[in-house]
Amino acid sequence: MTDGSGAPVATRGPVRVVGTGLLGTSIGLCLATRGVDVVLHDASRTALALARDLGAGRTPAPDDEPVRLVVVAVPPDITADVVLAELAAHPGAVVTDVASVKQYVLDELRTAGADLGRYVGSHPMAGRELTGPAAAVPDLFVGRPWVITEPATPAATLAVRTLAADLGAVPVLMAAAAHDAAMALVSHVPQVAASLVAGRLTDAPEAALALAGQGVRDVTRIAASEPRLWTSILAANAGPVRDVLVQLRADLDAVIDALALADRATGPETVAAGALAAVNRTIAHGNTGAARIPGKHGGAHREYHVVTVLVPDAPGELARLLTDVGHAGVNLEDLRMEHSPRTPMGMAAISVMPDRAEHLERELAARGWRLAS
Amino acid sequence: MTDGSGAPVATRGPVRVVGTGLLGTSIGLCLATRGVDVVLHDASRTALALARDLGAGRTPAPDDEPVRLVVVAVPPDITADVVLAELAAHPGAVVTDVASVKQYVLDELRTAGADLGRYVGSHPMAGRELTGPAAAVPDLFVGRPWVITEPATPAATLAVRTLAADLGAVPVLMAAAAHDAAMALVSHVPQVAASLVAGRLTDAPEAALALAGQGVRDVTRIAASEPRLWTSILAANAGPVRDVLVQLRADLDAVIDALALADRATGPETVAAGALAAVNRTIAHGNTGAARIPGKHGGAHREYHVVTVLVPDAPGELARLLTDVGHAGVNLEDLRMEHSPRTPMGMAAISVMPDRAEHLERELAARGWRLAS
Repeated sequence: MTDGSGAPVATRGPVRVVGTGLLGTSIGLCLATRGVDVVLHDASRTALALARDLGAGRTPAPDDEPVRLVVVAVPPDITADVVLAELAAHPGAVVTDVASVKQYVLDELRTAGADLGRYVGSHPMAGRELTGPAAAVPDLFVGRPWVITEPATPAATLAVRTLAADLGAVPVLMAAAAHDAAMALVSHVPQVAASLVAGRLTDAPEAALALAGQGVRDVTRIAASEPRLWTSILAANAGPVRDVLVQLRADLDAVIDALALADRATGPETVAAGALAAVNRTIAHGNTGAARIPGKHGGAHREYHVVTVLVPDAPGELARLLTDVGHAGVNLEDLRMEHSPRTPMGMAAISVMPDRAEHLERELAARGWRLAS
Repeated sequence: MTDGSGAPVATRGPVRVVGTGLLGTSIGLCLATRGVDVVLHDASRTALALARDLGAGRTPAPDDEPVRLVVVAVPPDITADVVLAELAAHPGAVVTDVASVKQYVLDELRTAGADLGRYVGSHPMAGRELTGPAAAVPDLFVGRPWVITEPATPAATLAVRTLAADLGAVPVLMAAAAHDAAMALVSHVPQVAASLVAGRLTDAPEAALALAGQGVRDVTRIAASEPRLWTSILAANAGPVRDVLVQLRADLDAVIDALALADRATGPETVAAGALAAVNRTIAHGNTGAARIPGKHGGAHREYHVVTVLVPDAPGELARLLTDVGHAGVNLEDLRMEHSPRTPMGMAAISVMPDRAEHLERELAARGWRLAS
């Protein structure tokens, strides 16, 4: 236990968790195993029983004390309704939700005349590929941002801030609208773009797909996401997502127009000087934007050098390589595996500080490792 | 040496390499160190001397035998001109090039009335983040597809096929136009999409960027690519890239229109049933396309389960984790590192066969590892 879960818990129960899926059960697990009284609820009796059996909390009893904090962890399209019901049922409790879009929840609560003094929205930025209570782990939130949205009263904000800190997450205060605009840029629009690029592969010839390299794999990795969940997320954040997509479409139009001019088959005899400026600008603009994404540990983006090593696809080989990297005295900043399409060999792409790359290449070569692309 | 470089070389010299950048020098290194006579040429004397000193070949001598094979490894915008000059200067040699777009080279050679019986286009799909002769490694091409384009004579095709095999690459025969259409789908359009998404981050607030997760990092990783090189690649493949981008724009329009209907601020009072069908279809279509990308070793795409483990950011910890994975008797299919934005802790996302995930989680937990999102 290196951080978080060994520290004393500041959240005081009873905490009611509504929705014992991945997020709700993980919250329950982390609190309950550290002595907080957690009361679970889920519309599905199976999910509820499973979460309880996993140790995420107990089911309600008639003589329960009043609940202090309610965490609504249900699908986004029913979040506002459930928050409303919980505010009414637990008049002394602070109620929060974990939906990944925030302004629409606030709007619906306002329209319904809810007691907004006791509501505070939150968005813990954690997830796994697996879903449901069985996938829950108490360390799900460690090191992840946990957005707490404004407006909210200081008391309600404090309750959720304490919860986030107890779970090992990093609380971040933001206006609901700013949160949604941020999500459009760093999550929802990338999802749409990945899906659009992957969608174009649906009818591609097999021979074309066989040439797919690491680039298209990276761009389309999140295109495997669940359609129903993403439709409801995009619908809930329709305005901000649409705004960014409209801007992106204008940039795309400029590229399409420039390529029409550059196309020998349909364009002018000689490509006019400057016709390709829009293409160059798009790539350069992308350089600038990509460089703004913070590096590991939230520090400034650093340019690492990548050393790529051939790794035979046999048990223990990767561990042996990393042990040799350690022996070379070089700190590994990042690691990606790539697979060569037709040989039983992987490529480990090891990111290191630029001034260490040459030394590492020399050391690994001396230990018999083969450097590759 | 586990494959390729220990086998006897079938290519017979002298081989002339024109352009001693990363690709040319790597080709020279691999051949020369295995006894093939390699003659180097580069317009830059520094690059040429460096490649020679690295052992990639020698400079020409007055009494040289006639060259058998010329490999043109110069930037794409001057490839056709250099191929033309080499065909004229070496009337007994097969000439190939390594440009990543193929039809325009063929077109320019045809227009110039070149001897196409001795030319064959090729595209070795290898690269590194580093460029120039100093970054060259003899194993650059191991396991990578090496596209050889048609039309070409059997003799010319055989010469390059042999070269590709000697370098450890996997030769793939394809029509030039089919190659370019494939590249548009699996490389050039993903590049444009990544640049467009990253470009939208240029003016994003710092607070938004701080919420960037692994998804947007993956989508925009290749947005760091070099603008000048990519402008020339996209210009050379303007027609096919534009065709795919126009289709992608139509799909994007459908999403934008659907989101306008779903937007409570500007849309109708009640979201019409089916208004979101286009959004759902886009994500689902992306699922289908992404699933068609071949899995490792060119096999069918497999659904792995991902086990994510917290890894303290200290030397040797990742190696220790992978050793424990080995001790658990589980084969690691893939590995990605993620970094938590504000803690000195990384997350290792380990892909394993679905039926091994639970066992691995149990074993790692028993060895004191913390599972996370």
